Amino acid sequence: MKTRAAVAVGAGKPLEIMEVDLEGPREGEVLVEIKATGICHTDEFTLSGADPEGIFPAILGHEGAGVVVDVGKGVTTLKKGDHVIPLYTPECRSCPSCLSRKTNLCTAIRATQGQGLMPDGTSRFSVGGEKIFHYMGCSTFANHTVLPEIALAKVNPDAPFDKICYIGCGVTTGIGAVINTAKVEIGATAAVFGLGGIGLNVIQGLRLAGADMIIGVDINNDKKTWGEKFGMTHFINPTEVDDVVAHIVNLTKRGADQIGGADYTFDCTGNVKVMRQALECAHRGWGESIIIGVAGAGQEISTRPFQLVTGRTWKGTAFGGARGRTDVPKIVDWYMEGKIQIDPMITHTMPLEDINKGFELMNSGKSVRGVVVY
Amino acid sequence: MKTRAAVAVGAGKPLEIMEVDLEGPREGEVLVEIKATGICHTDEFTLSGADPEGIFPAILGHEGAGVVVDVGKGVTTLKKGDHVIPLYTPECRSCPSCLSRKTNLCTAIRATQGQGLMPDGTSRFSVGGEKIFHYMGCSTFANHTVLPEIALAKVNPDAPFDKICYIGCGVTTGIGAVINTAKVEIGATAAVFGLGGIGLNVIQGLRLAGADMIIGVDINNDKKTWGEKFGMTHFINPTEVDDVVAHIVNLTKRGADQIGGADYTFDCTGNVKVMRQALECAHRGWGESIIIGVAGAGQEISTRPFQLVTGRTWKGTAFGGARGRTDVPKIVDWYMEGKIQIDPMITHTMPLEDINKGFELMNSGKSVRGVVVY
Repeated sequence: MKTRAAVAVGAGKPLEIMEVDLEGPREGEVLVEIKATGICHTDEFTLSGADPEGIFPAILGHEGAGVVVDVGKGVTTLKKGDHVIPLYTPECRSCPSCLSRKTNLCTAIRATQGQGLMPDGTSRFSVGGEKIFHYMGCSTFANHTVLPEIALAKVNPDAPFDKICYIGCGVTTGIGAVINTAKVEIGATAAVFGLGGIGLNVIQGLRLAGADMIIGVDINNDKKTWGEKFGMTHFINPTEVDDVVAHIVNLTKRGADQIGGADYTFDCTGNVKVMRQALECAHRGWGESIIIGVAGAGQEISTRPFQLVTGRTWKGTAFGGARGRTDVPKIVDWYMEGKIQIDPMITHTMPLEDINKGFELMNSGKSVRGVVVY
Repeated sequence: MKTRAAVAVGAGKPLEIMEVDLEGPREGEVLVEIKATGICHTDEFTLSGADPEGIFPAILGHEGAGVVVDVGKGVTTLKKGDHVIPLYTPECRSCPSCLSRKTNLCTAIRATQGQGLMPDGTSRFSVGGEKIFHYMGCSTFANHTVLPEIALAKVNPDAPFDKICYIGCGVTTGIGAVINTAKVEIGATAAVFGLGGIGLNVIQGLRLAGADMIIGVDINNDKKTWGEKFGMTHFINPTEVDDVVAHIVNLTKRGADQIGGADYTFDCTGNVKVMRQALECAHRGWGESIIIGVAGAGQEISTRPFQLVTGRTWKGTAFGGARGRTDVPKIVDWYMEGKIQIDPMITHTMPLEDINKGFELMNSGKSVRGVVVY
């Protein structure tokens, strides 16, 4: 079949809207009509050429929502008409990682996904016979795409595509980091570094988890209003205080606890210096710091080991530690029940033709989340 | 009263055996006759001058066992004749840290202990009217010493002092790192870097916890026999393999899990490069790496944040995460019941007069643990 897509023809070049050939689903695969897709910094990371594992030409996009159009042989859990969210972290429920109960990082199709291919080692996309690569196993910048059954979460059919597409990455990453990775408890104190789309979702995750103090940190004072919309209780502009670590340690001294430090801290910046600050303002004895941001290629985090020996824990999270097929449908339900908000974060919607403008909005910091609606 | 002690008169100088004046216990304090004390690398770290927080003149030693001789006003949990192990990490059971249930790092007397003083801000030791400082709240290189009640674990009176003194630091640190900090489960794989006194106790902790694979790593091949005595199943000399991280990842591929990496890794070297190796050979998705070794002043650990984002956790431990008054008596019982071994690790015993020889044995790597018997 033919479908319309925004193709990344090379690093640093604008996406090109074109008709592409899409082969139907093979065994264990599902054809999905994408109804909406978010534009995420990870797409930009690859498009810019900064991603050392970027492959071109490819169809980017990994934050989508759509409808099942056709299923291949052997597909048992999905049928035509089901509403789905593509999962760049699949959930096969049978690999050692899925069975470990300790991680969401399913390894069933890791190798081929990293090569921009379907699990059988081939691509479904082409133009004039030339292969176009898949991206993060999703390729949601195409009106139709093919995914493995294990990489699709079946969700509430009443949920609006142009909002829940954001659950395919940003929302789940932020909220999941709080709930699955940090397992924040009621009454905790927390600091969130970087109040972009991920940071705001961390904040609403903290509110959902019942945190007492939710400190937002951003160099842009305009983010104060944004953070407060989602539950932030304190705002710090690190350029306006002497030492942001000392400032947070002091701010979190409560009652009998005059040591201070946040129970949980989250880096949503990708800046390795900020990752260190996030660790070091975590509470002595039990503070946990979670890295969510993706650092530039080759960059390293560092600290004195004393920070860990005195009881701080340094962790990271990918896709918010969420098991896609199990947890993503729940988050969609939370949205439908009003437990979490998404609508205010979707600052721009546009047709596929304007996707390059969507990247410009994101890169200039003017959008929290831009969404393409097909 | 007078007692005999080995006094650290200055950085880098041999200890001097002398009679010192010891004031009796004040309110909440306990006078203890030390019967035996281990000589630990931390004593050497301070004595050498490398410890930026070292204070002189002081009575070092923090790994002791003895008998209560007298108690001050208000002491309710100990009486004359009780057998005790001094705790450099006290357990007050009422500070925010003790009450957090998340850390063993009691903060009740942290400030004064760091200054070499009793909780009331004074010292009990002097010579000719000149103040001698306490050390780590213990000062076990004196035949008699005074400690706060909250810094003494009451233990089984049948246990031999010259063995259980080692539980005051090394044994608890190693076994506790496994049980309290890592919480290793039956069937786990583990790698232990550095097979000195701490590493061997990590190994026997892993055996106690039911680990399947216990990989020891040391640049000294003589440690292979030592490790095997306590439960090590595999030995690697990192100078004899191309890449110790890749080697451990391969060695730990089991059954359906062809990703590899140890479930738990422990650094017992204090070398920041080794700490990084220990992290990076931990299993993708869930591996935890625990720093036990103390690094040199100003040294830093580093890694790519990708290591954490893909599911590894970096932690540290102090005193094995053990609550002294609660956990130390249990470890003494485990020794008495034969669950853990200590006797083979006590390679040398000596009178106080020979304590400097004990330091020489340790520094030359000839002793696992040297113990002074009063």
